[in-house]
Amino acid sequence: MSIDRTGSNSLTQNLQQQINAQSNNQANLAQNLNPNDRPSYPKAALIEQTLAKIKFNPQGLIPAIAQDAEDGTVLMMAWMNAESLALSIETGEVHYWSRSRQELWHKGATSGHIQRIKAMYYDCDADALLVKIEQIGDVACHTGARSCFFNQIL
Amino acid sequence: MSIDRTGSNSLTQNLQQQINAQSNNQANLAQNLNPNDRPSYPKAALIEQTLAKIKFNPQGLIPAIAQDAEDGTVLMMAWMNAESLALSIETGEVHYWSRSRQELWHKGATSGHIQRIKAMYYDCDADALLVKIEQIGDVACHTGARSCFFNQIL
Repeated sequence: MSIDRTGSNSLTQNLQQQINAQSNNQANLAQNLNPNDRPSYPKAALIEQTLAKIKFNPQGLIPAIAQDAEDGTVLMMAWMNAESLALSIETGEVHYWSRSRQELWHKGATSGHIQRIKAMYYDCDADALLVKIEQIGDVACHTGARSCFFNQIL
Repeated sequence: MSIDRTGSNSLTQNLQQQINAQSNNQANLAQNLNPNDRPSYPKAALIEQTLAKIKFNPQGLIPAIAQDAEDGTVLMMAWMNAESLALSIETGEVHYWSRSRQELWHKGATSGHIQRIKAMYYDCDADALLVKIEQIGDVACHTGARSCFFNQIL
């Protein structure tokens, strides 16, 4: 996996270690990524700029809404910390922070249901994220449902 | 405004007081609601059932995603407590809890940008809400933007 080392610092080095570890564990990851799908930004700089703008909560987390980029279906909402947000930007695949497992969560790493990022936004208060994705397998929910929002109240 | 008193209890009575107070302050509220748009559930029972299922965070809040029911645009994300969720179900208009003002927030009460509920869901973990709405004025954001998610990262 090609890593942009421009603006390399301790955060970037830490990310490099994380990404190397992921690459070792998931040998096919780089092959599965289409370089044309990945943004051409100087990512280390973009990560720094983004982390400076985002307001994480007292637990260091921000809610992230995953929306199907094609048809607009809201698929799930989960949480990111600074590391998972940075890795999402770096790799073009959604990484969350699992609050229940208290660990970095590369979505789809075990299920295959990777979320490829097509666009990402933060809101007016910089305390929520919207990620427009291609949902590999068309299943986002751990229950096997396409969307986690299948329980209707009204 | 007609209130279903079936299953009336302290929560319902509290809601009744809240709704009466809102009605006094906003004389046109009932006239603006189209009875055909409002669900015909026994709402007191529905509110009780819903509140029993939802997992609020330690601050008593749950994130709520507001999505345009027509074209799927994600307009905003804010927070509800039990009272605002109950009032949303009861009135058919979105009520949030303002964390910055620490008060109940009937969305659009001052701006006119009411959010009429077309459907509402909770997710697989019962710790996030998705509300499909008709956005009156087609403006959800306090900045005047249609959607709060106008800051693009990727």
